[in-house]
Amino acid sequence: MAKSKKSWEKRLAGQPDPLTIDFVESLSYDKRLYKYDIAGSIAHAQMLADQKLITKAEFKQIKNGLLETSEEITKGRFKFDKTYEDIHMAIEARLVKKIGEAGKKLHTGRSRNDQVATDMRLWMRDEIETLQTEITLLQKAFTKLAGKYIKDVMPSYTHLQRAQPIVIAAYLLSFVEQFERDFIRLGNCGQLLNISPLGSGAVAGSTLPLDRKSTAKQLGFSDVSRNSIDAVSDRDFCAEFIFDCALIAAHLSRLAEDWIIYSTSEFGFVSIDDSFCTSS
Amino acid sequence: MAKSKKSWEKRLAGQPDPLTIDFVESLSYDKRLYKYDIAGSIAHAQMLADQKLITKAEFKQIKNGLLETSEEITKGRFKFDKTYEDIHMAIEARLVKKIGEAGKKLHTGRSRNDQVATDMRLWMRDEIETLQTEITLLQKAFTKLAGKYIKDVMPSYTHLQRAQPIVIAAYLLSFVEQFERDFIRLGNCGQLLNISPLGSGAVAGSTLPLDRKSTAKQLGFSDVSRNSIDAVSDRDFCAEFIFDCALIAAHLSRLAEDWIIYSTSEFGFVSIDDSFCTSS
Amino acid sequence: MAKSKKSWEKRLAGQPDPLTIDFVESLSYDKRLYKYDIAGSIAHAQMLADQKLITKAEFKQIKNGLLETSEEITKGRFKFDKTYEDIHMAIEARLVKKIGEAGKKLHTGRSRNDQVATDMRLWMRDEIETLQTEITLLQKAFTKLAGKYIKDVMPSYTHLQRAQPIVIAAYLLSFVEQFERDFIRLGNCGQLLNISPLGSGAVAGSTLPLDRKSTAKQLGFSDVSRNSIDAVSDRDFCAEFIFDCALIAAHLSRLAEDWIIYSTSEFGFVSIDDSFCTSS
Amino acid sequence: MAKSKKSWEKRLAGQPDPLTIDFVESLSYDKRLYKYDIAGSIAHAQMLADQKLITKAEFKQIKNGLLETSEEITKGRFKFDKTYEDIHMAIEARLVKKIGEAGKKLHTGRSRNDQVATDMRLWMRDEIETLQTEITLLQKAFTKLAGKYIKDVMPSYTHLQRAQPIVIAAYLLSFVEQFERDFIRLGNCGQLLNISPLGSGAVAGSTLPLDRKSTAKQLGFSDVSRNSIDAVSDRDFCAEFIFDCALIAAHLSRLAEDWIIYSTSEFGFVSIDDSFCTSS
Repeated sequence: MAKSKKSWEKRLAGQPDPLTIDFVESLSYDKRLYKYDIAGSIAHAQMLADQKLITKAEFKQIKNGLLETSEEITKGRFKFDKTYEDIHMAIEARLVKKIGEAGKKLHTGRSRNDQVATDMRLWMRDEIETLQTEITLLQKAFTKLAGKYIKDVMPSYTHLQRAQPIVIAAYLLSFVEQFERDFIRLGNCGQLLNISPLGSGAVAGSTLPLDRKSTAKQLGFSDVSRNSIDAVSDRDFCAEFIFDCALIAAHLSRLAEDWIIYSTSEFGFVSIDDSFCTSS
Repeated sequence: MAKSKKSWEKRLAGQPDPLTIDFVESLSYDKRLYKYDIAGSIAHAQMLADQKLITKAEFKQIKNGLLETSEEITKGRFKFDKTYEDIHMAIEARLVKKIGEAGKKLHTGRSRNDQVATDMRLWMRDEIETLQTEITLLQKAFTKLAGKYIKDVMPSYTHLQRAQPIVIAAYLLSFVEQFERDFIRLGNCGQLLNISPLGSGAVAGSTLPLDRKSTAKQLGFSDVSRNSIDAVSDRDFCAEFIFDCALIAAHLSRLAEDWIIYSTSEFGFVSIDDSFCTSS
Repeated sequence: MAKSKKSWEKRLAGQPDPLTIDFVESLSYDKRLYKYDIAGSIAHAQMLADQKLITKAEFKQIKNGLLETSEEITKGRFKFDKTYEDIHMAIEARLVKKIGEAGKKLHTGRSRNDQVATDMRLWMRDEIETLQTEITLLQKAFTKLAGKYIKDVMPSYTHLQRAQPIVIAAYLLSFVEQFERDFIRLGNCGQLLNISPLGSGAVAGSTLPLDRKSTAKQLGFSDVSRNSIDAVSDRDFCAEFIFDCALIAAHLSRLAEDWIIYSTSEFGFVSIDDSFCTSS
Repeated sequence: MAKSKKSWEKRLAGQPDPLTIDFVESLSYDKRLYKYDIAGSIAHAQMLADQKLITKAEFKQIKNGLLETSEEITKGRFKFDKTYEDIHMAIEARLVKKIGEAGKKLHTGRSRNDQVATDMRLWMRDEIETLQTEITLLQKAFTKLAGKYIKDVMPSYTHLQRAQPIVIAAYLLSFVEQFERDFIRLGNCGQLLNISPLGSGAVAGSTLPLDRKSTAKQLGFSDVSRNSIDAVSDRDFCAEFIFDCALIAAHLSRLAEDWIIYSTSEFGFVSIDDSFCTSS
């Protein structure tokens, strides 16, 4: 076991150089995907059992082994060893150590390529939901604050020169609109990414009778991907998510810049509680 | 006329420095918005007439004057003079020269701020439609090409090392999937931007009884904006459009890089007709 | 002539597609290199004559033809035809039309690859000098202005909160320091790029007895490049020049942001003459 | 002690909110500056003693206390507490705990602003030296490798199409040229940043009779900064360093892309030892 940890060592002679191990490992950052990797693996094993590709007993062993591993990680009792390269290999190795031969069957009809594509989508789907919840809370806070200032007047500014007077509430609600678009954009991203790549294998699919719709349904995906080459290589949703986050940051930056200017001695519109202040 | 071309000259003494004129002018590039600026102005004038803010006769004069100006620009007979600063001022000055006093009333209840925000949205909505049409044509071309290669086999590559064999059709269809997401993303952008800012004025709206739903409907917007401060300053849709275009470019770049490699002597998968080749 | 304008048409059958011509042409923007292309060609021809690769009479014809072409371009009498692809081909074609066979010999021992690398370096060297002159003028203006405010006090700001008082002169001179680094950085870039790539050919040099030091000396380069593969592909100096310009822009942006804030009603430190103002 | 950890707590009522502490702390990443912070502090204390601003005995206490602290950090025995905000405060607090009143005098004539500007410059100067050493080793490796292939021929490529034949040595030496420019560029950056900001205070210098040339000389700076406002705010050298690193990365990326293509089955120019290979 200790001598053949990695998926590709059968084709390669000897041990990899330590530099190579460091260069290719992603475990140090993809470990955050563990929950999704395990959820994906349980769905995959369930399908394998339904399709008679593994026995029900094997499925039970696999499921329990994975749930135990999940708990070990959550509780900080899992030792991450970078020679396992990534989170998929680390979890699989742990499973095999726990339940033996049955653990090795989990890889049936699956590749690390469709596995990581699945993990990323599940993880990002959750992150989007979390962000949307926080955006809603922020909108509520701004709306509540606006409610206190529906009659108080402040200058509006164009190019930082005083323009027409506005009520403070209107100024505050302008951010609620910006956050609303951020919410919608994240939702669009979430919808576009919610497609299951499972069954795409390394790049060319699988010859086994996999039930792709079953794993997709178990994992809450709205559909299965249509082209395996695209499914394992598509990272558009990551770029889109990063763009959406950048725009959220731009909105918050606009707010911050306004309030930095509004809290100068010269403007004096905003006064920040000492507990949120430090000194330069 | 020659002495008070610009909207702000009343408040400022003397003539602007030539450097200032060059620095602030946008006419040299925003002239491409002329069709949308004129469409927005006709809708606005129609609404002003409906609301009895101008007479029907004035509306008719304005509409005809604007349509004539549009034709002059389309036919290349319009002289763009950068001292008019932007396309709005250039068109308005032309209108006033054509029809006199009535032309000046077009500015009633409107600012260049909500005007340019409207123009940008109308222009981008059209550009998105054009791009979507071109994407569909490209998808059809790829699908047709794929139809010719449903049995021919090529290697798939991971890290440019040969992996499983695939049919050429599958390779080609992987791009159809990428373009499909581009199509959807542009549509999402188009939906989010399709809100009318007209009536937001410079930043704080207007005290006149404008019928914002009327101009929105005339221009094909699905709704009116809710916050005037946000409506005149929002350029999120521009950032989103640029992101969408960048992702399309990334997909085309992937295709180009593949084909550059596939058309080497060493790979020899692709042969390009001489009429599309040059030499270094 | 009209049928074989381009350098590579001998190897390719038929005419290029109009789309191809548009896609590969660079004449529409590299025409700004004409002065440097002609200077480089004259130096190259002089060296060819010195090395007896062309006759003195041919050199004279080439030189005069190129000088005439230069004047035609400067005076706007040159018709740029994009089917010639780039500035090198356009000028060469004109030369051949003027002087016939002798013109074709100019290409001896040279490729468009080392030619454009030479042009770019000569052009950028000039641009750097121009920018450095303007920086010096700007520094002088700031120093002169500082001289008027060596006793007048203003607040310094940290995070836009008032910090220690400073004299206005010190504030103004802080920009002189920033511009000084910009000047030095441009000079570093200019020194690094001042190497002659002439003689590198398309990528692998030339078998002819070219005198590379002669062309380098004629064109004011401090040395010749050592590796022909690197010499024709190196564009590091362009990236460095762009970086230097971006940093200059960052400094000017800091100044602009300061003055936008300082010219608000609330701060009121700066008052800008009406001739440099417009209205929103 | 526990009640007045931070520099600014005297002016602010109550304790900062835990969120504020997290938001403003930089200790988690600026702790890497500790060696330079301590070197700067010893130089500053030496100068204070020379200028009779502290006694020789106090200097000795401060120096020993700082050296002990340095050793604690190096040996991993220092507990980093983020409520101290940054590395300067953390070290100073430790010093005061060790030696009492004398430790507080270290802050005389210095601000965290000129202190961090000094630390950054010292740290980056060292990083540049390290990078330059590694570049030289890389150049030697490439030169040695080239020495083995001075007669072996390979195709050169333009647009990935075979062009003239070249010797492999020439290909390898083209990277030595690229790295040479990287070396020079880093040196230019190092020279420009090697200016001492010490004595600039928070932004407006100090009224104490500091000997700026003494601290500059002790720390190996070639000169002192001329303008205190610029000296504490200048981060140009960071942008330049990042640019230089980006260009190094671009060169390595070009090498990597070449070798990825050259090690395909189709090209087969390069064969990589199994110990540096993994599988997808």
